[in-house]
Amino acid sequence: MLDLPAADLDAETAAYFQKCMEKLGFIPNVLAAYAHDLAKLKAFAAMYNDLMLAPSGLSKLEREMIAVVVSSANRCYYCLAAHGAAVRQLSGDPVLGELMVMNYRAARLPARHAAMLDFAWKLTETPHAVVDADRAALTAAGFSDRDIWDIVAVTGFFNMSNRIGIGTDMRPNAEYHAQAR
Amino acid sequence: MLDLPAADLDAETAAYFQKCMEKLGFIPNVLAAYAHDLAKLKAFAAMYNDLMLAPSGLSKLEREMIAVVVSSANRCYYCLAAHGAAVRQLSGDPVLGELMVMNYRAARLPARHAAMLDFAWKLTETPHAVVDADRAALTAAGFSDRDIWDIVAVTGFFNMSNRIGIGTDMRPNAEYHAQAR
Amino acid sequence: MLDLPAADLDAETAAYFQKCMEKLGFIPNVLAAYAHDLAKLKAFAAMYNDLMLAPSGLSKLEREMIAVVVSSANRCYYCLAAHGAAVRQLSGDPVLGELMVMNYRAARLPARHAAMLDFAWKLTETPHAVVDADRAALTAAGFSDRDIWDIVAVTGFFNMSNRIGIGTDMRPNAEYHAQAR
Amino acid sequence: MLDLPAADLDAETAAYFQKCMEKLGFIPNVLAAYAHDLAKLKAFAAMYNDLMLAPSGLSKLEREMIAVVVSSANRCYYCLAAHGAAVRQLSGDPVLGELMVMNYRAARLPARHAAMLDFAWKLTETPHAVVDADRAALTAAGFSDRDIWDIVAVTGFFNMSNRIGIGTDMRPNAEYHAQAR
Amino acid sequence: MLDLPAADLDAETAAYFQKCMEKLGFIPNVLAAYAHDLAKLKAFAAMYNDLMLAPSGLSKLEREMIAVVVSSANRCYYCLAAHGAAVRQLSGDPVLGELMVMNYRAARLPARHAAMLDFAWKLTETPHAVVDADRAALTAAGFSDRDIWDIVAVTGFFNMSNRIGIGTDMRPNAEYHAQAR
Amino acid sequence: MLDLPAADLDAETAAYFQKCMEKLGFIPNVLAAYAHDLAKLKAFAAMYNDLMLAPSGLSKLEREMIAVVVSSANRCYYCLAAHGAAVRQLSGDPVLGELMVMNYRAARLPARHAAMLDFAWKLTETPHAVVDADRAALTAAGFSDRDIWDIVAVTGFFNMSNRIGIGTDMRPNAEYHAQAR
Repeated sequence: MLDLPAADLDAETAAYFQKCMEKLGFIPNVLAAYAHDLAKLKAFAAMYNDLMLAPSGLSKLEREMIAVVVSSANRCYYCLAAHGAAVRQLSGDPVLGELMVMNYRAARLPARHAAMLDFAWKLTETPHAVVDADRAALTAAGFSDRDIWDIVAVTGFFNMSNRIGIGTDMRPNAEYHAQAR
Repeated sequence: MLDLPAADLDAETAAYFQKCMEKLGFIPNVLAAYAHDLAKLKAFAAMYNDLMLAPSGLSKLEREMIAVVVSSANRCYYCLAAHGAAVRQLSGDPVLGELMVMNYRAARLPARHAAMLDFAWKLTETPHAVVDADRAALTAAGFSDRDIWDIVAVTGFFNMSNRIGIGTDMRPNAEYHAQAR
Repeated sequence: MLDLPAADLDAETAAYFQKCMEKLGFIPNVLAAYAHDLAKLKAFAAMYNDLMLAPSGLSKLEREMIAVVVSSANRCYYCLAAHGAAVRQLSGDPVLGELMVMNYRAARLPARHAAMLDFAWKLTETPHAVVDADRAALTAAGFSDRDIWDIVAVTGFFNMSNRIGIGTDMRPNAEYHAQAR
Repeated sequence: MLDLPAADLDAETAAYFQKCMEKLGFIPNVLAAYAHDLAKLKAFAAMYNDLMLAPSGLSKLEREMIAVVVSSANRCYYCLAAHGAAVRQLSGDPVLGELMVMNYRAARLPARHAAMLDFAWKLTETPHAVVDADRAALTAAGFSDRDIWDIVAVTGFFNMSNRIGIGTDMRPNAEYHAQAR
Repeated sequence: MLDLPAADLDAETAAYFQKCMEKLGFIPNVLAAYAHDLAKLKAFAAMYNDLMLAPSGLSKLEREMIAVVVSSANRCYYCLAAHGAAVRQLSGDPVLGELMVMNYRAARLPARHAAMLDFAWKLTETPHAVVDADRAALTAAGFSDRDIWDIVAVTGFFNMSNRIGIGTDMRPNAEYHAQAR
Repeated sequence: MLDLPAADLDAETAAYFQKCMEKLGFIPNVLAAYAHDLAKLKAFAAMYNDLMLAPSGLSKLEREMIAVVVSSANRCYYCLAAHGAAVRQLSGDPVLGELMVMNYRAARLPARHAAMLDFAWKLTETPHAVVDADRAALTAAGFSDRDIWDIVAVTGFFNMSNRIGIGTDMRPNAEYHAQAR
């Protein structure tokens, strides 16, 4: 694991970490890893919070499902552990979390979710081959252009964070494994 | 192309776009595309500017070389056009830009750059297979742990932005093609 | 799910299923699925029980680790659920089970296990490329020729059963998910 | 080649080998290789004989065609030699055997066989991507659910035995090469 | 770069090289590389000139588009540099040349060209999977059987020359990079 | 099969076909297929005859071994049938021909041939990844620069002709199958 010494936290970051402790009981290791450089940490957290928590035509659970399916394609241990837990928690369905980790095609998903995840998988595995017909399949499944943006953006984001997790050999907090089983 | 109506620019964004016009003569289409939602635009710009422009053990040219090689692996038209131009410009070597677009292995690179780009390629193409030995090869090529973080982070970022470019069918500004030929 | 009507159980099979109920509390769905044809069920069970339970230079846990890593490569939901649970149970280490499901390369394994799983992965993903050097790596890691046979045989077996699980859309028993968390 | 010393044959195995000598003129090397452990040999032979010789909606030739196409995908020398000979023999058409070895898509097959082999190929090469639509294509080609089970089971079996053949570097008996040319 | 000493040019070859100098201002390095053996040079030049310059239902630009797309799939620096320039020149559209190098799917091509390049890409990347339906798609796009021959032949030729370029580490003439920008 | 009407043969071509009849007893279908256009036929035959029959540091058998291994990678029925026969004939070893078709790695080849075929396979399957180290492995195995040229050229040629065989659905002459068994 790439272990860079943490910077001194400024007030904003200290408050953010404090909020993590209160809400989660721990500071996610991805934030601790980024804490070697506060500018990088803030940029990452701002993008993450906007993508995963801001209003969107996609529910928070849907965004977490994309997160796990992308991480499954890329086999990122950190993100599978952390976001697999989030799917279990948000859905109240532990089996759904396992299915997203193991193979989303084995889940008996409604057409909307199958289309969404088929797109995310293709954009992850063979981005060069994505064409208008792929976007049209999302439109046909009821997604607006803004929804498509959000599917693309979440897919893109986890293709980034999977590579940061794997590239730095990041370890998930132990707490994730037992959550919402 | 996914064409979402631009939001009203706030003062900060208007100033940023104004600075683009002054420095580049145009507003990069990726920023225009993000302008449908200022929170997303700002998060993207903050991360981009930190990664590509802030102090780092990697030169700006090295970061642009990674950007183009990742985009070559993923075959992202937008990023190859925009960052291919950046490599030509920063290096003063138009052929180097072409080599990064076409196949970096054909370039006769110093060992440092070959190691850096081999790592970026592997983390892009087969992230699941990256192991300690891959990081050790970077250390052996003279990169510090912080440099490795930056190689990982730039590689990750363009794996995101390539998918945003392709997923939304983004078009590069016409100006890039002729720059620094 | 391919749902073939069960045959009438003969005494031997009924006793086997009874033993499952006593030891596990349920009949594994793979056995129920095979029960449409007792000859097939018996052949499958005989091979499975010999491979996974008979004396071997590989511990039962090691055999289950191979089972999960092969199933991870092939993304078989049934086998990941069932054998992931077995790794958690036999090792007493729930995180090890998750690591085998998600990406065994992220586990900090002793050299013996890394060599064993690297071989199983390669024989699964690119069987055509396996050569003497791959067997030599197992020998160097301390495996005897008979151990290598067993690694090969377990890897082969799960390449079969993964395809039976996926090809018939088999569903794991609900009990596996919560076991040994 | 992994060469484990043969166990002392019990009466049942000796009789089985005797029957091979009478019917084939030789003992298939796969059986000789398994003879280091009679329990393993019997489990393998029981499964093989049930799958390839028991009554089924698939003819014996059809099962051998699947065997060769799976072995072609995995490039298993042993199985291609042995089962290529079986296709030549059962079909009385030496060119059909060559086509199954070389590329089944070049054969001008009836729709039933094309559907059967397309399914076997996909389940072999990209098992994770097999979905209901793939089974539906078999149903549309006239296969019953029990036939689909058999297609899946034969495909699975040769994905196992190919890996045992390659993993132990097994050599086909010289007799196969000239059979039924 | 594989650098074999040039043979003494015979009159025919000297005239051919002279013509190159007059028309292009330089001798393409591929011809210089082949000049170590005049029989090989003449066979290569004869095939190249027939394929790319002789009358055909495909325009010269269309043949060059195939050349670049095949070279993009194979990532051949020499051919991308040389034939990318040819597309720019013949089309008078520098951006079209870039699109063929970077990702032809991002170009908004007429259906005829999309069909032609989809076929060339598939025949390059997965030749074993090409079937009648792929040829039928060309027929549906208006190509005659003779046109299909020419698409196949140009695709085949650049799959050869890409491998000669890469295999011998051939360097493109510097002149190509700036042409027709 | 793409079936273009043959052109009227000129004297040179008629004599060439006559020679085929005398030496082989038939006209190879690839030549018949090319006979729709004599310029194309002559260019193909000239290149083929030079590559496969002219003096070289590689024996004719070695060149045919490369031909079959490349055709095995690409799964070209025509070339595997025709050149598999050539390997059987030139080597007097029918099993060697089968091994080249099925998986050359299963053959127990001298180091020279293993190095030659490993290079041909890599240049066929992942041309973009071939680097100086791959050429150095050939040098270390005793090949001169001119030999390397010939390995590259034969590999390239069959990457072309495989795609012409598959792309036009060419059928091998029936005679090949039984030759030299």
